[in-house]
Amino acid sequence: MELKVDLNSDIGESFGAYRIGMDEEIVKYVSSANIACGFHAGDPTVMEKTVVMCQKNAVAVGAHPGFPDLMGFGRRNMDISASDIKSYIIYQIGALKAFAESHGLKLQHVKTHGALYNMAAVDEKLADAIAQAIAAVDENLICVAMANTAMQKAAEKAGLRFACEVFADRNINPDGTLVSRKYPNAMIHDSDTAVRRVLRMVKEGMVEAVDGSQVKVRADTVCVHGDNPQAVKFAAGLRKALEENGVKIAPMASFL
Amino acid sequence: MELKVDLNSDIGESFGAYRIGMDEEIVKYVSSANIACGFHAGDPTVMEKTVVMCQKNAVAVGAHPGFPDLMGFGRRNMDISASDIKSYIIYQIGALKAFAESHGLKLQHVKTHGALYNMAAVDEKLADAIAQAIAAVDENLICVAMANTAMQKAAEKAGLRFACEVFADRNINPDGTLVSRKYPNAMIHDSDTAVRRVLRMVKEGMVEAVDGSQVKVRADTVCVHGDNPQAVKFAAGLRKALEENGVKIAPMASFL
Amino acid sequence: MELKVDLNSDIGESFGAYRIGMDEEIVKYVSSANIACGFHAGDPTVMEKTVVMCQKNAVAVGAHPGFPDLMGFGRRNMDISASDIKSYIIYQIGALKAFAESHGLKLQHVKTHGALYNMAAVDEKLADAIAQAIAAVDENLICVAMANTAMQKAAEKAGLRFACEVFADRNINPDGTLVSRKYPNAMIHDSDTAVRRVLRMVKEGMVEAVDGSQVKVRADTVCVHGDNPQAVKFAAGLRKALEENGVKIAPMASFL
Amino acid sequence: MELKVDLNSDIGESFGAYRIGMDEEIVKYVSSANIACGFHAGDPTVMEKTVVMCQKNAVAVGAHPGFPDLMGFGRRNMDISASDIKSYIIYQIGALKAFAESHGLKLQHVKTHGALYNMAAVDEKLADAIAQAIAAVDENLICVAMANTAMQKAAEKAGLRFACEVFADRNINPDGTLVSRKYPNAMIHDSDTAVRRVLRMVKEGMVEAVDGSQVKVRADTVCVHGDNPQAVKFAAGLRKALEENGVKIAPMASFL
Repeated sequence: MELKVDLNSDIGESFGAYRIGMDEEIVKYVSSANIACGFHAGDPTVMEKTVVMCQKNAVAVGAHPGFPDLMGFGRRNMDISASDIKSYIIYQIGALKAFAESHGLKLQHVKTHGALYNMAAVDEKLADAIAQAIAAVDENLICVAMANTAMQKAAEKAGLRFACEVFADRNINPDGTLVSRKYPNAMIHDSDTAVRRVLRMVKEGMVEAVDGSQVKVRADTVCVHGDNPQAVKFAAGLRKALEENGVKIAPMASFL
Repeated sequence: MELKVDLNSDIGESFGAYRIGMDEEIVKYVSSANIACGFHAGDPTVMEKTVVMCQKNAVAVGAHPGFPDLMGFGRRNMDISASDIKSYIIYQIGALKAFAESHGLKLQHVKTHGALYNMAAVDEKLADAIAQAIAAVDENLICVAMANTAMQKAAEKAGLRFACEVFADRNINPDGTLVSRKYPNAMIHDSDTAVRRVLRMVKEGMVEAVDGSQVKVRADTVCVHGDNPQAVKFAAGLRKALEENGVKIAPMASFL
Repeated sequence: MELKVDLNSDIGESFGAYRIGMDEEIVKYVSSANIACGFHAGDPTVMEKTVVMCQKNAVAVGAHPGFPDLMGFGRRNMDISASDIKSYIIYQIGALKAFAESHGLKLQHVKTHGALYNMAAVDEKLADAIAQAIAAVDENLICVAMANTAMQKAAEKAGLRFACEVFADRNINPDGTLVSRKYPNAMIHDSDTAVRRVLRMVKEGMVEAVDGSQVKVRADTVCVHGDNPQAVKFAAGLRKALEENGVKIAPMASFL
Repeated sequence: MELKVDLNSDIGESFGAYRIGMDEEIVKYVSSANIACGFHAGDPTVMEKTVVMCQKNAVAVGAHPGFPDLMGFGRRNMDISASDIKSYIIYQIGALKAFAESHGLKLQHVKTHGALYNMAAVDEKLADAIAQAIAAVDENLICVAMANTAMQKAAEKAGLRFACEVFADRNINPDGTLVSRKYPNAMIHDSDTAVRRVLRMVKEGMVEAVDGSQVKVRADTVCVHGDNPQAVKFAAGLRKALEENGVKIAPMASFL
């Protein structure tokens, strides 16, 4: 059987006159795009252009909803009720879905952004609200998050397909969680190491934790960044390495 | 054949801690609701609650998109490109559509708000952008606007069903346009007169202009307001008078 | 020596077309107003009108800065860096100060709003940032907060005058802190009891805690509300009772 | 007598995670900075950093207020009442003034941004509202705008000092107004020509219009841009040319 993995990236985060991210470059290398929905980043014009860009590059589109905090780019925790969050997520997914469908595309997935992503990994109520919002809009949408999180449990409870997301450039603890950015060894700075780790995650379902122990992982989609030239170069290299090792890069909906 | 007309009202214009409009009252008397979409008014929580309120009262739901100007309540002209407007409208319709569909409702119509409504009545480019946005999201959506406007032409060009909106409380010129609010005779303050005029518009397709001439009108939907107790009382009275005169109040989609 | 106390209320929280609070009523009874600055509530037009209203009623004006969260009315905790908060506070005070000075008034005080007020009571870094922001704009500004909080310590460290705020309608713990709203006995619902407690706080500097113990308090300013008719009535009654008992209602700057 | 001219540039237009403009570069060459105030661009954190940057580079600071339209970068006409505009301007100036004064700087001037600048050039009511707002905050503030505009008249009527702004890269009509960007000859693309024209404007008070006629101009401050490397290079070259020709670059307040 052919091995497949998805590469995803956050794009469409420009706003008005403000440009951010090398979207035109990174869409050449990924198979799925998480498109900002106007709360933490993005605006309707940017969303429409980004959907068209994804269509031209045969990249599957997903919604990337976040906190209503443009000034903080959705990276600051906000203590919002689960009920309000559910409405905020439906709103954002709905807006992006309209752009996708108006261009003949089907919305593939939903991945929350920044602080909301992090909070939903550990807060069950929040995770449930998000999963219910996704299911309320379209029960065929795939929920993207890290494995073994409150978000995964909530997605499964809501009957959603779930895509396990892994990070090429992050070290992990023996329990599979990410090493916090507070610690000096949170990031993997060497590209070759990062590529080798991803290859092993995809092909063997294993990765080495910071203490040297071997951890089981399921890697459905690998998060890559497009905010600077090195990041894009890394994504290109990762894609090449995966393909040379017999792994096909494909949108998550094609194999989940 | 049974005579039918739709009664519509703008609702869901509250925002966060701010309450505006007597939504719970007015939904008892109308057949269609124009729900604000978060740009000039409304927020995701309000939108969801408003959709549920409409469902309970068997009121058909429509999107009420406006300018991105919460501080001005969408009542101030903005010089936004047609291309941007198209994206703004798709965004807002999409968001509301997601709430409607997540509660098992079908979005019925789109009526633009305030300054956007007025500008689209005379600006062909803007009207085309709006019509194309509506059609892009769902070509079965009904476009609501005044007759003989750029908006009507644009809707027909885009292949959309069109609902002619009339106003119970406004005088009209011999050419069918509204008497501008700049003039003292813009408004009809006497409720009985207003009701009689609506009855004649619906039953005979005629109305008297300010110069005494008789003007042909097509009245698919009558706009009523819910922002104060007298307005709600008027709507209740209008509904009663219509029903007593053999006119059925029904959502526009049931007869257009 | 004449006994004096200040009565303060949060006003100017309307926004655009949205009206909230009975500002015209409550300003008749208070001596100081905390005016929203456009982040959690208020807009420039409302701010200017509110300053003029205070001037006409001889009410001293203060800034009421909050989190940048209009949708949540500043009532939701946000995890914003102390450095950013300092800039947010300077911005908001500066904006209100310009309205005050353009009408010939001197800005008297600063009291933070909602979630920011609560967080600054216990978070030293946040409290320091706020105190430094106030001092940076004008070291003669009075900082208003509850006694024995991180905010009081920070204000004193920054060399600011400090006004101890007490609440007429809240029970307190033996340590002087408010009984959390999570508990059924958080609020004092009987007006007469509330008035008697305030009188004793002002005249004797003592109040009874929920366990019956007597607690020392310093009451420089009493917070009253103007969001509903009963609240306004309570404020009027409290003012009357204080005056009848020989306590003069005066802006905090006149005695601090 | 020593010839002096001011060079001004719009800076501080970044917002949250969004960077725009080469502020660190352009401040080396200008004598006055127009700092965005959070409506069309800028946020409190950016404003504070920008004020500090100006202080380090001995650049005089001014407020650059705009329309409340971040999504449109203040470049879209908005039909806002003069009364509201007055409050919007006071708010924005006040916010920036607080940052300036908290760092020991005096606010020097006010120059409106984008669509507001253009509209105030021809709309007397709007221009009056802006001038009154500036005077209301501080009558020593200098109003910056083009000569022979409604804004100049309004500033003079309000008793404000006025700085005539000229553009290095724009052709002008025989009546002194800018050639509209609709026409192919609106811009001057040749740097040497642009520098020569500025030199003549400053030294002789004359410039050649598009029809070859000679027009009198008063050039108090020359607007230069910092949004791309060529623009910065042009500003550096212009400054050098002016200094080599005996013209001193100095903040407008030093000679107006």
